[in-house]
Parts: sequence; structure tokens; C-alpha cells
Amino acid sequence: MDLRSSPLLTDLYQLTMLDGYFEAAMEETAVFEFFVRKLPDSRNFLMAAGLEQLIEFLENLQFTKEELQWLADSGRFRSDFVDYLAGLRFTGDVDAMLEGTLFFADEPILQVVAPLPQAQLIESRLINILHLQTMLVSKAARCMLAAPEGSLLVDFGMRRAHGADAALYAARASYLAGFAGTATVYAGPAFGIPLYGTMAHSFIQAHARETDAFETFARAQPDNVILLIDTYDTEAAAEKVVQLAPRLQADGIAIKGVRLDSGDLAEHARKVRKILDAGGLDQTVIFASGDIDEHKLADFENQSAPISGFGIGTRLDTSSDAPYLNCAYKLTEYAGQARRKRSEGKEMLPGRKQVFRHYDNGIMSSDTIAREGEEPGGEALLQPVMRGGKRVGRRPTLAESREHAARQLATLPAPLRGLGPASYPVHVSNALKELTEAVDRFVTDQARQ
Amino acid sequence: MDLRSSPLLTDLYQLTMLDGYFEAAMEETAVFEFFVRKLPDSRNFLMAAGLEQLIEFLENLQFTKEELQWLADSGRFRSDFVDYLAGLRFTGDVDAMLEGTLFFADEPILQVVAPLPQAQLIESRLINILHLQTMLVSKAARCMLAAPEGSLLVDFGMRRAHGADAALYAARASYLAGFAGTATVYAGPAFGIPLYGTMAHSFIQAHARETDAFETFARAQPDNVILLIDTYDTEAAAEKVVQLAPRLQADGIAIKGVRLDSGDLAEHARKVRKILDAGGLDQTVIFASGDIDEHKLADFENQSAPISGFGIGTRLDTSSDAPYLNCAYKLTEYAGQARRKRSEGKEMLPGRKQVFRHYDNGIMSSDTIAREGEEPGGEALLQPVMRGGKRVGRRPTLAESREHAARQLATLPAPLRGLGPASYPVHVSNALKELTEAVDRFVTDQARQ
Repeated sequence: MDLRSSPLLTDLYQLTMLDGYFEAAMEETAVFEFFVRKLPDSRNFLMAAGLEQLIEFLENLQFTKEELQWLADSGRFRSDFVDYLAGLRFTGDVDAMLEGTLFFADEPILQVVAPLPQAQLIESRLINILHLQTMLVSKAARCMLAAPEGSLLVDFGMRRAHGADAALYAARASYLAGFAGTATVYAGPAFGIPLYGTMAHSFIQAHARETDAFETFARAQPDNVILLIDTYDTEAAAEKVVQLAPRLQADGIAIKGVRLDSGDLAEHARKVRKILDAGGLDQTVIFASGDIDEHKLADFENQSAPISGFGIGTRLDTSSDAPYLNCAYKLTEYAGQARRKRSEGKEMLPGRKQVFRHYDNGIMSSDTIAREGEEPGGEALLQPVMRGGKRVGRRPTLAESREHAARQLATLPAPLRGLGPASYPVHVSNALKELTEAVDRFVTDQARQ
Repeated sequence: MDLRSSPLLTDLYQLTMLDGYFEAAMEETAVFEFFVRKLPDSRNFLMAAGLEQLIEFLENLQFTKEELQWLADSGRFRSDFVDYLAGLRFTGDVDAMLEGTLFFADEPILQVVAPLPQAQLIESRLINILHLQTMLVSKAARCMLAAPEGSLLVDFGMRRAHGADAALYAARASYLAGFAGTATVYAGPAFGIPLYGTMAHSFIQAHARETDAFETFARAQPDNVILLIDTYDTEAAAEKVVQLAPRLQADGIAIKGVRLDSGDLAEHARKVRKILDAGGLDQTVIFASGDIDEHKLADFENQSAPISGFGIGTRLDTSSDAPYLNCAYKLTEYAGQARRKRSEGKEMLPGRKQVFRHYDNGIMSSDTIAREGEEPGGEALLQPVMRGGKRVGRRPTLAESREHAARQLATLPAPLRGLGPASYPVHVSNALKELTEAVDRFVTDQARQ
């Protein structure tokens, strides 16, 4: 069983519900949508991501023999139901916002149309995939907007990301949002993402003298000389870098940069910049890392700190200020009838939908959530991505999705680009409001029955 | 390449440092330790976890041909270094606190003794594994301590866990901490963890009448009848359950429970309890889910809410109030010499260590961090778990680790069991203080040189 592709990576209730649908022969067409109920307080917008991994999961959805045997042996399911699961594939349609598209609360970013059991079974993993990457890319996009113009951002967060998956997809999501690359090597072979990295404190500590560590490293990795200078005393180490430079230069090795990882980074950067400049190393740039997030980046920008690049780790990879999104995947139609959940605090809009975006001089001005088939004008954000269980058209490259994300960020209104709270108008079409009221009458009847 | 076992799931700097060590032929014995610098404000203690997955990773550490080829093709490394990596295995020793052991800031929970390149290479993934599970089990332990006596806790958080790994290990970590089980099916075959789950709102919505949904489900899953009653109107649905019960009873089917998932859960539970009791369903229990964490659990306990079991999801699986730990894996000795990093705010204790715990009437009273070889009395918490790259003794079962965790929680002093802040005395032995001062003199020389 492979964890990342197994249909057993799901909630048990998906299988017990499928058992119920099977017994009752409920296989008509269902429509489900994935949306975020409410944005975290610290987010003015979200960016969609995870679609590519989801499509791959859906195209390959299938129980292995081993998985079926485990289900049979569990004693929870009759053998005819397990036989039925053996033949189950995803044959439905999916419409979705492309990766990198900006969106807001209540807007479906993905709509599934499939026989009820299929659309149901995929729920848990679909949320698991879309939630993680959407959360991560949205945090990374905020960092991009806050960072000093022209600076280079690199994902450094693998170690404290929540496991292997989160580490890999943090690398991908941050690159999608515009980061220059990642320290996570696996993201190279997996996605072709540029890699960054040089040395840790342990490398310095393992050497008898700090200068020896610098020189050993420079000679082993002559094209990649960025020296970590905060292990003992930052400014003293910057002086050592200046003293070492001519000896390396004689052998054609340039010191590209130094990295600061502790203390008041802006203050150290100013002092180190002076030392490097005085020593003739004005081409040697300063990188910083350590507890950096969008707020620190904005601070560096305000202070005009002489820092060219930033390693952004834990706070990005865990989305630490908003470590989850209030998102859901909900039934909106079954057997041709619009449906709506009305649990307190969790009300939602029924029926098939489309989201339209309106622009003013190339800047987003408002969105409209409408019923499918309505034509309120504007740009339709949900696009066909799967038909009959297969991908529509060719898979976009990550570079294309990254360009799409950059174009999206360029259309963001100024107030939403800042770190303070700002809102954006999202309208619900009259036709959708009417449908909601009609479904409510049905729901009220339900409760009475 | 398999994401979860690949040595390429690491930070690039591990490989560039290894290149440096290779060029300088630095292969002497290094000692690294994993510890938490500071507990999150909302944690009075932490519980160790992740050791089993780490041992498995270390025992199997090896670059595949495909991975070596990718490294060679990357243009970053010379071929003799890639050849060297081909032969690299983990042959070191590991001492660690067993899974389920309680610990505090600055205490090493794991110590690695191995040739420098090996001990270095494993850093990123070692942290990634230990950090996630330690964070999760510590959150789950708080839930166990806060929950009403005798209630049943179940992990419901898969969908918003940060990817596949986090979902699976949240199930394992919460079970380790004492949860009754999980909704995540994969945790069944992977770890033998008991599974829980019945139905979602979509199951109710897909049926023309709520009562039909209840009956369909009960007949399909007669041993597992827990009905979700908050889709439209909670109390109205409870009345329907009462009306349905005799018809099911006639066929030998009992309604085990109902689940509430929205609104004021304690208030609904009281009303529903009355309706069920009045309808003769006093054996039907009430389960609750929805935004539950240790604080809500304490609230239910204070209110004596008639709820027997809790599904705990997002806030557990993302450790939302403390979504990362300030942890590190640091060099403490190389080639027989104690080492210490002194970067601002990141000072640490040098040398090989042992952690001793003292008890008073079976309750933990204080810990002492000492140099290896000291005998200050008390229980030694770091135990040999790998020697020469192989596991020492047999692998403990998850049930055994879970019992160890329960015994550990039973020794926790009363103030630390609550949700408010409380501290615990952790001493540093005189010998370790002296070593720290001696290393500091070396470090000061370093900075001056």
C-alpha cells in the first residue's frame, strides 16, 4: 500500500457511507464543491493550488488487491460491497480554478460532477491535497508581496514542515507563488525547482578554526560560496571573510555571499555590509534567515536593510499564523436536485456554480458567484479540467502555473496587497439567491417531516 | 524515488557540506543531539515521538541509482563524491528517550554518535520526523488530560492535516497519547489502530428524507449505527431517531449513538439527551465533533455535558495553537572535542549527555541534564536504541509504547496537568556547566582568531 496514492487514506465514514449508497443503489449524479467558508484573519486573499496532484490522484484512483483484502478482513463490509469497490474508478468531471488563481470566501474553487459514490469517496483526500497547497501558496504569496523589491526568496522550511508531503509541497507552493527556489533537494528531481543551500553551523563547529571552515567549503563548492558567519561572532567572521577573499581570488574563487541566521538581522547586515565594502567585497551579497515571515520582510523593506535574499522556513512551511483553512467539500446537488446543508455556522450555497471576475483597468474589482449557465459577464474562473475521469488537454508546466500566479498577483488591488486587513467585494447572483431560498423551503420541510 | 525514504528529502546544504567534509577528509566521530530550545507558551511539557519511523529511516538509508544519477547530472558535485555517496550508510549509534516519554526544554531526547558525514546528512529528515510526531503527540496528550473522565477521544483530523504523512502520523500520535482510535482508515493496516466513523452531512443530504438516510445507514452498517443529527435541525432529528428506533429494534438493530457537529454542542447535547431518554433510548450515547480542542474538552468537563465521545480534528492534527516546535539538531562534539554554537538566542549545551529524572512518591519532581558518565541518581531517560546502524533489541509494539505514554502521564505533577502555565525544574549538572564554560573559552578564542 502506498500512503500517497492509497484510497485507504480516507476517513472511515466515506467507506461506511459508500456501503449505505451501495445497499440503497444510490448511484445518481452528485455535484460537490470545494470552497473556503471564511478567510483567516491574517489573509486578504487566497491562491488556489494542489490541482495537479489532485488530478493525478483521481486519474489513478483504484483499490489494490491488498487494500481490498484488508477491507474484507476488517469484518466491517460484506463481500459484495468489497467486490464493488474493486471495480470503482473515478469517471467524473471536474471544473476548477487553475493553480495560482486568487479567490475568496464562499467561492467554489473546484466542482466535481460524478456518480454519488465516486464523488463521496474522494472527499477526505481531495480536501487533504487542496487544503495544504492552497494554504501554503497563499502564505508564500503574502511573503512575495511584502518582500523588498528585487530580493530573492528561498524556501528553507523542510525540517519543520509537517512531514514529507508538507515539505515537498511547501517547496512547490512557494515556487508557484514566485519564490526563486528551495533548499529541499527532492523538489529538484520532482518538479525541476531551482535549489539553494550552502552550510550549517555544524560545518563551522566541526572545524578547528572558522576560517578553515570557510576555505574548505569554498574549495569544495567553488561556484556556490555563501558563507555562514553567525556561529560565534558575526562581525568578527565578516572580517575573516575579507581576509580570506584574496587567497581564494588568486585561485579564481569568488565569495558570492554571506548568510546571517541570528540576532537583529537588519542591524548585523548594516555592520557586515560596511566591513565587506571596506574590504573591497562590494560584490559579495548578504543573505538572511531565521524566523522570517511576511512581517519581518516588510520590516526589512522599511529599514532598507542591505539584504539581497531571504531564506524563509518554519513560518512559511507551517503557515504558522494560519495553520489551517476553514474549508469544506459539500454536496450541492443530487439527482438533479439542488441541496444545501444548514448546520449552524456552516450554511452554504446550493447547486452548480460558476465564479466570474470583473476588472477595472486590469485590476480586479469584484467577483460574482452565479448559477451555472448564467452569463453575468466577466472572466469565468472555473475551467474544465477533467471529463469522464480524464484530464482535459495537456498538463500545464509548473513554469506556466507560476506565470499565471504572477499575472494574478499583478491584478490584485492595492489594499489587498498589504499586510493589514482589507476586503474585496464578492456578490451572489440573484438567480443563486433565489435557488438558495427555494432549497431552504425544502430544507425546512425536511426538518419538519 | 520514494519521497518518504529518499535521502534527497533533505536540505541542499547537507550535501554541499558533505562535499566539503569529503574534500577535507573529515570523517571523525561526531555527536549530535536533538532537543527543543523553548516550549511553546501553551505547553507545560512535551512527549517524545517519531523514534520508530526514524530508526526505520536510518536502517534503510541509502542512495538509489536514480538518485545518484540525478546528483551527478545536477552539475553540483564531482563524480568521486557521488561515488562516495553510493557507498554511504548509517553505521552510527543512537540513544533516545522512548516514544511516550515526557521531556522539557534543553533536554536532548536523542543523541547520535556517528562519523561526521553520516550524522550530518541525516539532520533535515531526522528533524522532520521527530518534530512532527513530538508536536502531535504533545497536543494529543493535553487533550487526554483535559477530557472528561472516561470519555472516548477519536482523531478526526485527516482532511486538514498537512498532507498524507501528517494525517497518518496524527492518527498514530493521538493513539500513542491514549486516544481510542482514528477515522483515518490507512492507520488500520499501517499500525493496527482502531477505526471509528459513520456518516457525513452529504449522506443525509443525498436522501430525500433525513429519516430515510438514518434507516439506510443502519441497515447497511447494523453494528455501527451512530447517526449524524445536525444537518437540518438537531432536536427535530433527535425526535426522528426516537421514532425510527422501534422499527430497527424489531430487526435486532440498536442505535448506538448520535453525533452533533455544529452549534453549542453542550447545549444541544443536554436537549438531545432529554429527547432520547424520554424516548427510551437511554443506552444511545452522544458523540460530538467540530472545532474541539483541549480547552473545549475542559469546558465540557466543567459543564458536565452529557457527551460520551469526541471527534477531535483540525486543531489536533495541525497542532493549531503551536504549529511548530523550536527544536534543533546540533553538533555537541567532534573528534573527541566538545562543541557549542553561540549564535545569539541559540546558545546550547556542549558534549555527550544523559538526562536523569527524579521522583517523589511516584510523581516527577525534577530532571537533571548531566554529562555522559555522571551518576547523579534518578532514572536515566536516554536509552540505547541503535548500535552500529542497527536497532538494539526488538521493536516495541505500538501498544507497549502507548502503555509507556500512559504511565508517563500518570507521573506528571498536578500543576502541569492543567491547561494554564506551569513550570518544572530542570537542572544542569555542575560538570556540564563546567564543560560549557571551558568550551566558551575555546569559542571566544575562535571569534578572536
